[in-house]
Amino acid sequence: MSLLVVGSVAFDDLETPFGRRERALGGSATYFSLSASRFHPVRIVAVVGEDFGPDQMRVFEGRPIDLAGLSKVKGLSFHWKGAYGYDLNEAKTLATDLNVFADFKPDLPANYRECDYLFLGNIDPVLQLDVVRQMARRPKWIALDTMNYWIRGSRPALDAVLKEVDILLVNDAEVRELTQEYSLIKAYKKVRALGPSTLVVKRGEYGVALFTPDGIFAAPAYPLENVFDPTGAGDTFAGGFLGYLAWIERTDVTALKHATLVGSVMASFTVEQFSTERLEQISQDEVRNRLALFSDMIRVEDL
Amino acid sequence: MSLLVVGSVAFDDLETPFGRRERALGGSATYFSLSASRFHPVRIVAVVGEDFGPDQMRVFEGRPIDLAGLSKVKGLSFHWKGAYGYDLNEAKTLATDLNVFADFKPDLPANYRECDYLFLGNIDPVLQLDVVRQMARRPKWIALDTMNYWIRGSRPALDAVLKEVDILLVNDAEVRELTQEYSLIKAYKKVRALGPSTLVVKRGEYGVALFTPDGIFAAPAYPLENVFDPTGAGDTFAGGFLGYLAWIERTDVTALKHATLVGSVMASFTVEQFSTERLEQISQDEVRNRLALFSDMIRVEDL
Repeated sequence: MSLLVVGSVAFDDLETPFGRRERALGGSATYFSLSASRFHPVRIVAVVGEDFGPDQMRVFEGRPIDLAGLSKVKGLSFHWKGAYGYDLNEAKTLATDLNVFADFKPDLPANYRECDYLFLGNIDPVLQLDVVRQMARRPKWIALDTMNYWIRGSRPALDAVLKEVDILLVNDAEVRELTQEYSLIKAYKKVRALGPSTLVVKRGEYGVALFTPDGIFAAPAYPLENVFDPTGAGDTFAGGFLGYLAWIERTDVTALKHATLVGSVMASFTVEQFSTERLEQISQDEVRNRLALFSDMIRVEDL
Repeated sequence: MSLLVVGSVAFDDLETPFGRRERALGGSATYFSLSASRFHPVRIVAVVGEDFGPDQMRVFEGRPIDLAGLSKVKGLSFHWKGAYGYDLNEAKTLATDLNVFADFKPDLPANYRECDYLFLGNIDPVLQLDVVRQMARRPKWIALDTMNYWIRGSRPALDAVLKEVDILLVNDAEVRELTQEYSLIKAYKKVRALGPSTLVVKRGEYGVALFTPDGIFAAPAYPLENVFDPTGAGDTFAGGFLGYLAWIERTDVTALKHATLVGSVMASFTVEQFSTERLEQISQDEVRNRLALFSDMIRVEDL
């Protein structure tokens, strides 16, 4: 099994009611790979600029993260500046500087072109499709994240890539905008017609809803005393979800449910500190313990 | 075991993106009793006006609902007019005419003064406390619902009644305003200091979180294809929750978890039609079947 992520590696300026960070490590491929690599080796395809130095690279070191597809080019790295209000549910984007990302054209190393699990992070659907087309054979599972910006502005390209996708991972507002359906059950039917057989709806503090051909599952978020910064929670979830599936080598609905719990637990660590601070530090024991607590929490004896 | 509800019986004018109803049956005691009476007999304490006629009374007939405490007085019944936007999460109140409710002073019939389960619907906390004081002996469990209006405007009275309460049933915004804590874990700690040992946080389409001294539980909402009118969902939940507990005669955490599922399923029926239309019609088989589907949906094998 091999697991590949295409996405962003970035610098984030973050502001929440609980503090701020400047030029903190961020980006979808960053969170995804730090999370997924707890369970399975990951290959990254992304681009950074000359300002991405040894301090940043160190975060990936000592982990089963293959950086052969992380190209470093002239210019500055992608930079995002966002602020959150007290409810932490929605980021206000204050600045987006694409920088080297503006000319990003993923070019997969030869050995990346065969992979079993592919995660297409939230980037231009034209690039997402381009990555799919570079595959020597069809991956077992392709998962995709997107956002309202692409749903509104790049619908034909998004529709084209969705035809190739198995698992769509988005939030409530995104799937509702994509399908023009408020009911998630109706939305899921339309998603299936677009391509993906599985839909994962990320609901922040309310958890995750999973729609599969074999039924629906929903799990709450792992409850936390302190949430500092929700940035990266969705990509951390995706990393745990696909990393676990790649490790377990199963695609049945029980595996998908378990992957949902694993993704939720991984995301719960990310939001407890700014940027990747907590995600970098957690031990395997902490992951295991929280998974056990979470499983207990949602368990109900038969009624 | 006996179960008593104190709350409103009202006429509602309802408007949602899916239609409208005028002078539809509403009120917390209405939804609560229709839901709870599926599981256990209920006694109602409430007041209606002369406009509350046989058509309205008929809805309660043929069910184990004791109306000895429903007084009919000169004047018009409580009337609420509300509208919902497309997301259905928050009602916009267009009119509140207290009418006979303005002078409501609950006076419990003698045989009501001993009860095992007491639900204090969302009314003036002064009245809620007055009802508690009329009890000949302390009920086994007292549950209370309230809203931001009382949290902001009647805090001393609310604090006084909360000291007597075992189970607080509110939504996210209400418990956050009550405790001034964003984290529900921290909020629960403050709720316990106020009196209630158990906290039920109603989250609409996102389900319910249950906080008990023995741990936390969370369940999603039962997913629906069509939601027409969320009015009464919270009181329907409370009715299923307490009706089930009164029936099962257990107070352990498993019973509370099951009560959460029962309440959620009952609420899922309410929102499928306007007012009490669906709640009035459902069969015991429909309740049973949906409970089985819901239990299946949230079940996960051990990870």
